[in-house]
Amino acid sequence: MTIKKISGNITTPLGFKATGLHSGVKKERKDLGLIISEQPASAAAVYTLNAIKAAPLRLTKENIGETGRVQAIIANSGNANACTGPQGDADALTMQEATASLLNIQSNLVAVASTGVIGQPMPMDIIKPAIEKLVPEKDGAEEFSEAILTTDTFAKTTCYEAEIAEKKVTLAGTAKGSGMIKPNMATMLGFLTTDAEIEPQYLQQALSEATDTTFNCITVDGDTSTNDMVIVMANGLARNDSLTPDHPDWPTFTKLIQSACEDLAKLIARDGEGATKLIEVDVQGAISDTEAVQVAKSVVGSSLVKTAVYGTDANWGRIIAAIGYSGASVNPDTIDTSIGHIQMLKDSQPLDFSEEEATAYMEQDTVLITIDLKNGEGSGKAWGCDLTYDYVRINASYRS
Amino acid sequence: MTIKKISGNITTPLGFKATGLHSGVKKERKDLGLIISEQPASAAAVYTLNAIKAAPLRLTKENIGETGRVQAIIANSGNANACTGPQGDADALTMQEATASLLNIQSNLVAVASTGVIGQPMPMDIIKPAIEKLVPEKDGAEEFSEAILTTDTFAKTTCYEAEIAEKKVTLAGTAKGSGMIKPNMATMLGFLTTDAEIEPQYLQQALSEATDTTFNCITVDGDTSTNDMVIVMANGLARNDSLTPDHPDWPTFTKLIQSACEDLAKLIARDGEGATKLIEVDVQGAISDTEAVQVAKSVVGSSLVKTAVYGTDANWGRIIAAIGYSGASVNPDTIDTSIGHIQMLKDSQPLDFSEEEATAYMEQDTVLITIDLKNGEGSGKAWGCDLTYDYVRINASYRS
Repeated sequence: MTIKKISGNITTPLGFKATGLHSGVKKERKDLGLIISEQPASAAAVYTLNAIKAAPLRLTKENIGETGRVQAIIANSGNANACTGPQGDADALTMQEATASLLNIQSNLVAVASTGVIGQPMPMDIIKPAIEKLVPEKDGAEEFSEAILTTDTFAKTTCYEAEIAEKKVTLAGTAKGSGMIKPNMATMLGFLTTDAEIEPQYLQQALSEATDTTFNCITVDGDTSTNDMVIVMANGLARNDSLTPDHPDWPTFTKLIQSACEDLAKLIARDGEGATKLIEVDVQGAISDTEAVQVAKSVVGSSLVKTAVYGTDANWGRIIAAIGYSGASVNPDTIDTSIGHIQMLKDSQPLDFSEEEATAYMEQDTVLITIDLKNGEGSGKAWGCDLTYDYVRINASYRS
Repeated sequence: MTIKKISGNITTPLGFKATGLHSGVKKERKDLGLIISEQPASAAAVYTLNAIKAAPLRLTKENIGETGRVQAIIANSGNANACTGPQGDADALTMQEATASLLNIQSNLVAVASTGVIGQPMPMDIIKPAIEKLVPEKDGAEEFSEAILTTDTFAKTTCYEAEIAEKKVTLAGTAKGSGMIKPNMATMLGFLTTDAEIEPQYLQQALSEATDTTFNCITVDGDTSTNDMVIVMANGLARNDSLTPDHPDWPTFTKLIQSACEDLAKLIARDGEGATKLIEVDVQGAISDTEAVQVAKSVVGSSLVKTAVYGTDANWGRIIAAIGYSGASVNPDTIDTSIGHIQMLKDSQPLDFSEEEATAYMEQDTVLITIDLKNGEGSGKAWGCDLTYDYVRINASYRS
């Protein structure tokens, strides 16, 4: 089970092209992107758990649910097409049909994703003609990655390859962050491409498992959006034996998708609004993996922990408080906690440590918090970022 | 069922005295307080749900659980006596015994409450002699209210009276806020006194019901502490018929305790760290009261809503997103939302409104958000505060 991280992007897997352009929904930056596979691909996706779901997300969910296939993805930033009523549904459908018409494929093979302002009608007079100008290219991946950004400060891409059933399989991904979008929305979008051959139901299984321990383990501010979606297309051009959970190389494939999702999730956390640091919380000794993740998310989501990390303050009291209110089963007397290499708590009681050493460690751009609950065998991780003045500035003052 | 808000404090009910002084745990401000009833009082309390509980809280819980009676409360600020191991338990016991000895009462009639730094041993060489200097007085309530403060910017007091079974009954309370305490802890403490005659189990019922819709409905930053506690003493000196849920004046008594708890909860929310505004979220039309409160807490706890309120931005998109991810059953197409008197969403779709008018409303020091889910008969409220630069400053830089 060896996988290799390589320099590449969403058009590195065989048979994918992409592009992105500036349509005019956003002022200056690219805001419309397209991914196309040369043949219909097996597709799987995970969607926001928010009860309020945007029109494009509902349309895409319905299509993938029915067909299990996607050949193209049309994505825009600047307008989320959420809380837009029947007109929003009609506009999502128009985006889908215009893309299908451009590419001369069936419209139910086109997935639609949007992110941006909510509650405003889609400017279809801008978007529809722009769709007609899209020209997907083998070297268009970067343009796509840029076109989906909102308050993100950098494009997010990852790529892996592995040998599966004696064929080289490549899997790549790009994502936009969960930072809030001017003026209304937090949205995370992830797009994965692979040339693996795999049926949709198994692809869904692999994606769902991977997102549980990656995208679902990051938090910027706890708010989840109406538009969150991660979608994967597998077009089979690697010509491997079709993958199933019984295949000897199944663990290799799940490792590919897991690694790509983890890379993207960490890039999103690091690029949280106003963030200066990535925080990783690694929990051992919980009664289950699920509870370990629950504790990790509680700690990484604590506003007090986040501000302490921003202030390079080795504030283990806030960490143990967040462990305590996580809702997980913990023994209040057996908790060990370290920040970086510096242990601060043993059996829930403070150790002497050098404040200077701790501050120096916390000045780095990645802060690792490790926790051993000594209460079981479960382990898990979560990622987040520090809470800074800039988070408040970005979210309090964007209309001024 | 008429109750009257009066000018008064925790020594206004018959038979209570209090005091507070500066012992030296904090630099300058008062940090040690005492409440005493002239006879043992029925007692009830609610405690933090945090799995990590401070030593004084565990001691008090054990005592009240066994006896249902409290005659005095000793409270200190500056040190929380949490994560302090067996020595912490011994120190809480010493505080209890020193107080009992001072007042010449049984030690298991003394409740102990602490708030402040965690993980540091209690400076008993300072606290024990200071306890011996406490002199409770009829006019000492303000001193007590000051002695429990930490990062609070003002003391919090409320007082009500009502006629119950033809006797005048008075109920008062004081509290400290859930703002984080230098350097480690968020703690909410509430102390209620009343001269009502009521058995402990019914007092517990009334307190638990009241806290469910008041103290448990406020959020400053979502962090709950190792030391949170609300305690009520009812000494019976009003000489009313003993209150039970079957008594015709039971609703009057529950209204008294509910009103006092709501006042204190709102004062705590308004005084959240760095807060400039109180936010009240009022939800109607949920499938149950419980789910209405769930939605209200989700909205008032959203960092995005909190920063928007700080920025006087009528950002209904963040409100509907927080409704959607609350976990409550909502119909995504029937939600109405107003900020103040200005309706912004009808059936989940935006209405035209004046941004200027909305901004003017949000510049006030209390911002009311009303939500009608039109999905049932449940209603509920929650309170919080805005998220400001000062919150980040207070919590990121206190050690510098």
